[in-house]
Amino acid sequence: MAWQNNVLRINLTSGVCSSEALNRDWAQAYLGQRGLGSKYLSEEVDPRVDPLSPENKLIIATGPLTATTAPTGGRSSAVTKGALTGAIAASNTGGMFGAELKMAGYDLLIIEGRAEQPVYLWIRDDKVQIRPADKLWGRSVWETEPWLRRELQEPQAKIASIGRAGEVGVKFACIVNDMDRAFGRSGVGAVMGSKHLKAIAVRGTRGVVVDDPRAFRAAVASTMAVLQPSPVRRRFTSRGTHNMMDVTNQFGSLPTRNCRDVQFEGVESINADAVRIPRRSDGKPSLQGNKACFACPIGCGRVATIDPASSLVNGEDPQGGDRGRYKLPSGGLEYETAFAFGPMCGVDDLDAINYVNFLCNEQGMDPISLGVSIAAAMELFEEGAITPAQTGGLDLRFGNAGALTRAAELSACGEGIGADIGLGAARLCAKYGRPELSMTVKGQEFPGYDPRALKGMGLAYATSNRGCCHMRARPLLHDFANVTTAGKAELVKTTQDLAGAIDSSGICMFTNVMFSPEHLAQMLDAACEGHWDLERMHEVGERIWNLERQFNLAAGFTRADDCLPVRTTTEPAVGGAGDGEVADITQMLTEYYSLRGWSQDGVPLAATLQRLGL
Amino acid sequence: MAWQNNVLRINLTSGVCSSEALNRDWAQAYLGQRGLGSKYLSEEVDPRVDPLSPENKLIIATGPLTATTAPTGGRSSAVTKGALTGAIAASNTGGMFGAELKMAGYDLLIIEGRAEQPVYLWIRDDKVQIRPADKLWGRSVWETEPWLRRELQEPQAKIASIGRAGEVGVKFACIVNDMDRAFGRSGVGAVMGSKHLKAIAVRGTRGVVVDDPRAFRAAVASTMAVLQPSPVRRRFTSRGTHNMMDVTNQFGSLPTRNCRDVQFEGVESINADAVRIPRRSDGKPSLQGNKACFACPIGCGRVATIDPASSLVNGEDPQGGDRGRYKLPSGGLEYETAFAFGPMCGVDDLDAINYVNFLCNEQGMDPISLGVSIAAAMELFEEGAITPAQTGGLDLRFGNAGALTRAAELSACGEGIGADIGLGAARLCAKYGRPELSMTVKGQEFPGYDPRALKGMGLAYATSNRGCCHMRARPLLHDFANVTTAGKAELVKTTQDLAGAIDSSGICMFTNVMFSPEHLAQMLDAACEGHWDLERMHEVGERIWNLERQFNLAAGFTRADDCLPVRTTTEPAVGGAGDGEVADITQMLTEYYSLRGWSQDGVPLAATLQRLGL
Repeated sequence: MAWQNNVLRINLTSGVCSSEALNRDWAQAYLGQRGLGSKYLSEEVDPRVDPLSPENKLIIATGPLTATTAPTGGRSSAVTKGALTGAIAASNTGGMFGAELKMAGYDLLIIEGRAEQPVYLWIRDDKVQIRPADKLWGRSVWETEPWLRRELQEPQAKIASIGRAGEVGVKFACIVNDMDRAFGRSGVGAVMGSKHLKAIAVRGTRGVVVDDPRAFRAAVASTMAVLQPSPVRRRFTSRGTHNMMDVTNQFGSLPTRNCRDVQFEGVESINADAVRIPRRSDGKPSLQGNKACFACPIGCGRVATIDPASSLVNGEDPQGGDRGRYKLPSGGLEYETAFAFGPMCGVDDLDAINYVNFLCNEQGMDPISLGVSIAAAMELFEEGAITPAQTGGLDLRFGNAGALTRAAELSACGEGIGADIGLGAARLCAKYGRPELSMTVKGQEFPGYDPRALKGMGLAYATSNRGCCHMRARPLLHDFANVTTAGKAELVKTTQDLAGAIDSSGICMFTNVMFSPEHLAQMLDAACEGHWDLERMHEVGERIWNLERQFNLAAGFTRADDCLPVRTTTEPAVGGAGDGEVADITQMLTEYYSLRGWSQDGVPLAATLQRLGL
Repeated sequence: MAWQNNVLRINLTSGVCSSEALNRDWAQAYLGQRGLGSKYLSEEVDPRVDPLSPENKLIIATGPLTATTAPTGGRSSAVTKGALTGAIAASNTGGMFGAELKMAGYDLLIIEGRAEQPVYLWIRDDKVQIRPADKLWGRSVWETEPWLRRELQEPQAKIASIGRAGEVGVKFACIVNDMDRAFGRSGVGAVMGSKHLKAIAVRGTRGVVVDDPRAFRAAVASTMAVLQPSPVRRRFTSRGTHNMMDVTNQFGSLPTRNCRDVQFEGVESINADAVRIPRRSDGKPSLQGNKACFACPIGCGRVATIDPASSLVNGEDPQGGDRGRYKLPSGGLEYETAFAFGPMCGVDDLDAINYVNFLCNEQGMDPISLGVSIAAAMELFEEGAITPAQTGGLDLRFGNAGALTRAAELSACGEGIGADIGLGAARLCAKYGRPELSMTVKGQEFPGYDPRALKGMGLAYATSNRGCCHMRARPLLHDFANVTTAGKAELVKTTQDLAGAIDSSGICMFTNVMFSPEHLAQMLDAACEGHWDLERMHEVGERIWNLERQFNLAAGFTRADDCLPVRTTTEPAVGGAGDGEVADITQMLTEYYSLRGWSQDGVPLAATLQRLGL
């Protein structure tokens, strides 16, 4: 058990909603969530389809531990062919939505086709409706969630929806759930928007049955016993991921001004200490507290406010709405958000960064991609490739906080220069004739780890199946200890496989630095049919990795796409541990392919596929 | 090079001082410091000798990187048969003394025999004198150092000496250098005292020549590039090792009240935050700043003061000296000191703990052993095995800060109940008929990690060649992630070998969590003749481990001595991650012996010895 053994299939073209039994062989081979969703996608979608066509599907997948008492067991994934990348996408969210979907009785929700008119889904256990969303279209996430709860007279409904960005086809639009959690990366929100699906509301009242409740309780207890006192857990709770900013800055791996620099002189204004400094206007700090996702004892999420004296919450609202909404406490800065709008854009204005972060939640945009795309636009502007006429007079220079906030507003609704920024950095830079200024891999923008100092992360970026990503492999600890490429290929391979299993289980990747994967294996073994141990987790993870690779190869990706931006491979870093270094993955990549059992073209060998049952 | 290729040999019985060429084959096989000192000791001392007899030798050994610019390259070791344990002892110190000895031109200083009357050594490059110390005998370390610099008219002299404790034969007396650094464990100070050697003063003005200066500079630079921005380094600098107290307390692995408990309700009064709280009397915190050893960019050492309003710095001095000396800033609390005098004795009085820490530096006692021995005495007292008449009316209960400070004072000079505490916990508990209350392994007291939650540490304690020790293996990170014995035997074995190499190199063990051992291998390879890589470091470490084991077996130790105190194996922990757990090393030990290539009696097999050239 642990799985609900039930798949909900919605065809938006025909309007048919049906449920079917889960393929239990696939569940045994791919676990759940990212793995199982990818298996269904691979079986049902031609990798060559246009991601925004009705032929693409959007799969919301839970894991076997989702909605159980496993610590952090509230995760779900959106699996589709990514609008931003054209590669297979699996975007992982927290919050409450995924657990609610599981408790409604479903492992997977498969959305097919395209509705004629905007619609939303209302799932209440086994009652499922496709309803018109014409009153919602054009509204933000922050309007959609309360509107739907009122409309459905169900205050307990959990909602995932797109904002303006997903409607207007921003390539990096995300799906936001629970107001400020998100299926964030690769443009899964654009896919949802292309299907004219505004929102999914769910209320689930069923339980989840685990295979051996007594063993499961014991496994959870022993995991909690390690997690609760873990020093890393304590730091995540007290400081959040934002804590990383001082580390990357000192190490010289904080991407700054579109990767011109690797250290940012303004970190002290925007780091995890800065959000604690009382403001002059009201004596309160930006940081208001923390919050946790379903079943999570960590609570790395932040809650923040903007200075009530700031024009950002008092001025005229270009969206035509009430700016008062920005005065309320809302999801605060994570490291990636802070990096993308701060150092990457050269901006050290904490209120501006908080505001743009709010805007991302409100209108459904991936903050990493938005920030890095604005940074690319800033460099294009400084280089003269984008003219003041094209920006409508906006002085789009690095460090201009006002330009950052305006560019973000324009991006959210696809207006003016924002329409081009909404293409993502790769298409933007290509359009303006300077493709080398795009800090992307496979069309997806850089997270906050410069690969010149962090060698393993460079390989992780280059080989990530969903485009540039810091969560698909975990070489960071070793990277911080050693500026070398030695041993990194094996580390990246191993942690990619492990991440595949964690991302398919229903629990959060961050636990990986707080308790050992044996704990997860024990919980899976108690919850699921079959014998689960660490070895099998690695095998499942490796199978998922190869399945995703197969999808991408069929979609047209080649070894040439396993690369890093030319700036990082030719312009040496200045300062920090990687001073004078460039990123060079050539040798690591050769070794990595070999370890993976792939040809030097990056194609899985027949023996590898056979070994993994692919 | 890197070695000085020179050994200074002092025979205190005959008064002969001579220098001889270093055995370079041994240097290639045992590196330096702990390894090389142990080789010389093994060759020259019968393992069955009484540690306090003239037949025992005391070897002060530097490593090839000592006195180089390698980060933290200021370490040296005191190698001897330990007075506390009867096992081979290698106590590692920082400060400036070791580098000065190396710069005087010596890799090793071998002290033999016993002087008729108290003496000290004065080494000024190749000028060496044995001088009478009758004016110094009876004085503290804090008096001896300035006295010697005045007497020798050499303000730059670096000094290692014993206090009262080493003179009166406290079994855990240490050798203190640079006022508050120490060759701390296993009673090496008692051995020095037994030789009637009060102090060693050194002034060295020579350089150290490395084999390939250009490569060495590059290796140091690349190590520094990783070390300087390391997040762990930053935490050691800002918080010191004291930071660990909250971690072990939350995890339920903070030995409390002689290991009756694993969590201490009073940590907030004595942790790394408490030393930062301004005092009411003078508005200053206990913590005054930090300090660094030779060539160390970390600076984990603390500088602290006692509240100037406290009776501890104002009352009558039982030593008859001036209590004003305790008002001056001096070496502050490390984690082990804070644990041993705080939770282990149930004491939450920060000034009392600081004072006893000062007393350890002043009179030359190992604070871990002193604290744990006082804790044992407290339990004996509460159990009625020690009577108020025997304590001279001292109410030696857990938590009594005044009893702690008085017991420490009595121990330092071997008076009253202090004479028994100075035997160490094992002999003390045996004397009072309750051997099971001694928290020791091979006669050496517990550091601050309870082995019921920390499974790997339990095996590390049991197998440590110098008696109970937390620095001979590094399973901590894995222990904190997983309360299990699985995989720990291999981890302990591997990190023991690595620690052997690090402890023999001249750099500090703490670097192990800040940069990878490859950096050390690169520095060694550039500094030393021969090819040095990680594989060879592990081989050298394993050779050292087996050599030490051979010494102990010949001294009479058996498998039965690789054990843990019965309390930890029979009384379950209450609270924290190890709630309900006892320590059980049986299976790990079997696996460990097998991995080591030892018989199940713990004796290295012929093939193992042959493989290591032993």
